[in-house]
Amino acid sequence: MTQPTALQTPVFRTASGRVYNFSAGPAALPESVLLEVKEELPIYRNLGTSVLEISHRSPEYAAIDASAKTLLRKLLGLGEEWHVLFLQGGASLQFHQVPLNFLPKDGSADYLITGSWAKKAYKEAKFLGNARVAASSEDRNFSYIPDPSTWEVDPRAAYLHFTSNNTIYGTQFQTEPEVEVPLVCDASSDFLSRRITPERYGLIYAGAQKNVGPAGVTVVLIREDFLQRRNQPLPTMLDYGTHVGKIFNTPPVFAVYLVEKVLRWLEGLGGLPAMEAINNRKAQLLYERIDRSDFYRGTAEPGSRSKMNVTFRLPSEELEQRFVEEAKQAGLIGLKGHRSVGGLRASIYNACPIEAVEALISFMDYFEQRYG
Amino acid sequence: MTQPTALQTPVFRTASGRVYNFSAGPAALPESVLLEVKEELPIYRNLGTSVLEISHRSPEYAAIDASAKTLLRKLLGLGEEWHVLFLQGGASLQFHQVPLNFLPKDGSADYLITGSWAKKAYKEAKFLGNARVAASSEDRNFSYIPDPSTWEVDPRAAYLHFTSNNTIYGTQFQTEPEVEVPLVCDASSDFLSRRITPERYGLIYAGAQKNVGPAGVTVVLIREDFLQRRNQPLPTMLDYGTHVGKIFNTPPVFAVYLVEKVLRWLEGLGGLPAMEAINNRKAQLLYERIDRSDFYRGTAEPGSRSKMNVTFRLPSEELEQRFVEEAKQAGLIGLKGHRSVGGLRASIYNACPIEAVEALISFMDYFEQRYG
Repeated sequence: MTQPTALQTPVFRTASGRVYNFSAGPAALPESVLLEVKEELPIYRNLGTSVLEISHRSPEYAAIDASAKTLLRKLLGLGEEWHVLFLQGGASLQFHQVPLNFLPKDGSADYLITGSWAKKAYKEAKFLGNARVAASSEDRNFSYIPDPSTWEVDPRAAYLHFTSNNTIYGTQFQTEPEVEVPLVCDASSDFLSRRITPERYGLIYAGAQKNVGPAGVTVVLIREDFLQRRNQPLPTMLDYGTHVGKIFNTPPVFAVYLVEKVLRWLEGLGGLPAMEAINNRKAQLLYERIDRSDFYRGTAEPGSRSKMNVTFRLPSEELEQRFVEEAKQAGLIGLKGHRSVGGLRASIYNACPIEAVEALISFMDYFEQRYG
Repeated sequence: MTQPTALQTPVFRTASGRVYNFSAGPAALPESVLLEVKEELPIYRNLGTSVLEISHRSPEYAAIDASAKTLLRKLLGLGEEWHVLFLQGGASLQFHQVPLNFLPKDGSADYLITGSWAKKAYKEAKFLGNARVAASSEDRNFSYIPDPSTWEVDPRAAYLHFTSNNTIYGTQFQTEPEVEVPLVCDASSDFLSRRITPERYGLIYAGAQKNVGPAGVTVVLIREDFLQRRNQPLPTMLDYGTHVGKIFNTPPVFAVYLVEKVLRWLEGLGGLPAMEAINNRKAQLLYERIDRSDFYRGTAEPGSRSKMNVTFRLPSEELEQRFVEEAKQAGLIGLKGHRSVGGLRASIYNACPIEAVEALISFMDYFEQRYG
């Protein structure tokens, strides 16, 4: 890693010549995982063919699927009462599938509206039945997580849906909601980044492409007693029960194969306690740098800051654009903020190494020195 | 390729040491495509990162998506009135999505029941509304395609759904149905294997994992005037209109990237006319070998035989099991028939080279000589 000197644009690369990737998703994957995949092409182990070309009913794929599910259970501390499913369609399809299964015809479900994705989830529920807003932070452009004391959760609600981390706005629930009804969580952008309390949840879903693997597979965790409450009958593919305990139809084989490798990497790192400590450190370093001067300005309220997506602004849009361009030249990519917030966004998911954050901080120092 | 001599088990391998893969799906991919993927890990071209880790809004992914769609249009001769979508959930989700969009509340749709998958599609349509069976070959275990003269197609039906190739039973429509209503086709297992007449269709869908790429992406072709007839309103993700002309949510990036490479490979081969000639030749060779003696017996009626999945039986189940095991030792994998038919099945999709079929025929000669 080259150290920047004043007024000279620094350049950063990993040992293998890769750039540092801060993309919000699909996002960086552990390099060791990618090298394993490369090694296993075009022949997987002793199979004589690649993993992309084998039946999903083969013993080899069954072993991959089982290993991934076992690792997930172990990492999250899930008991026998939990089912692990690998589905398709991303969080966007879950927005429909969750209320289709769990919003009772004669009941209701509550939603915490903390960002664009939460709003989309709510919209799909409302399309099907009686969905209520328990709290919203839209009044200040989703820059904070509403305080639990302000939530109006109906104790008769079938579930309370929340988005644990808001990728676009850079906010995150600092603690897990504690309410009387089961939680349903869209954990797409902070899944496996920290420990959770499974007992509070009925269902957790996460598109893999941020913290768990490539785009193309959705991890769904569902508790047996919650599953049993679902509406019946349902279209076969959209009934969670269809996918419990078996592989119903052709799964996204390659994506699950990659997820299994990422989970093994995470376990090798020390599991969620170790990952959480690393993620805390990365976020701390980056927010400290942002807060050190007035040149950089965080967009999320300090008490709601995300440890996954760090959003910040510069004194002008012109400087922001320059920052993105120069950073890319320096080997730091994916830093442009979402169009609905503007500014910059550094996504520092699990697979983003601490060296990447250090490189970004060096670049921020250089950039402020030059343009501040 | 080693030529077998009598009573000595032959061994077959490709130049790069790969076995010949007859898996019904996920199925063999062109080796050159897999080597390109290997080459592009962990760095894609001049990106500094792999294609698995880039935003689906990046110019690089947009170029892949656009190229794949352009190639599909070109290969199939689709005009401007056609939309090309890359969705998720496989054919199984299409079984629900098609009638959700196109089965009118006050109308009906017709289904040709030529196998297990056709039956599943019909079941999902029936769940939603008035679906009718226009013809069925279940009376003789789906061993044939019913003659068009026996079909009872309602001219008021919103569409006629058919499964162009029946993977499990080894049957295939020899010609495209010609009816008064728009066709909806599950082309999962013979997509891009031969030319089609787009004008007859309203919608064509295909899980990629047989002829077009890896598991994890579903190609959907939909004609604008047919699209306009869909029911409204619909859940966002299941409304085909949501995905027309834009990338609505995170697509299965890697699967589309691979599909694009397979399509380029297919174009380089000479497109559908060339592919069709090769597929005809492969099927002809294999069926000729089956018909040469009584030792092998095709399960599909000759006039309905599939050029993609060649199903056959041996004199006893014991011999069938031995065939599968010895063939695997010989480097010919994936030959076990589906449990609902038994026997053997050789899937000889686009990416199965003629050498693979020649190797299989050599092995069949050897096996009959030894055990016949």
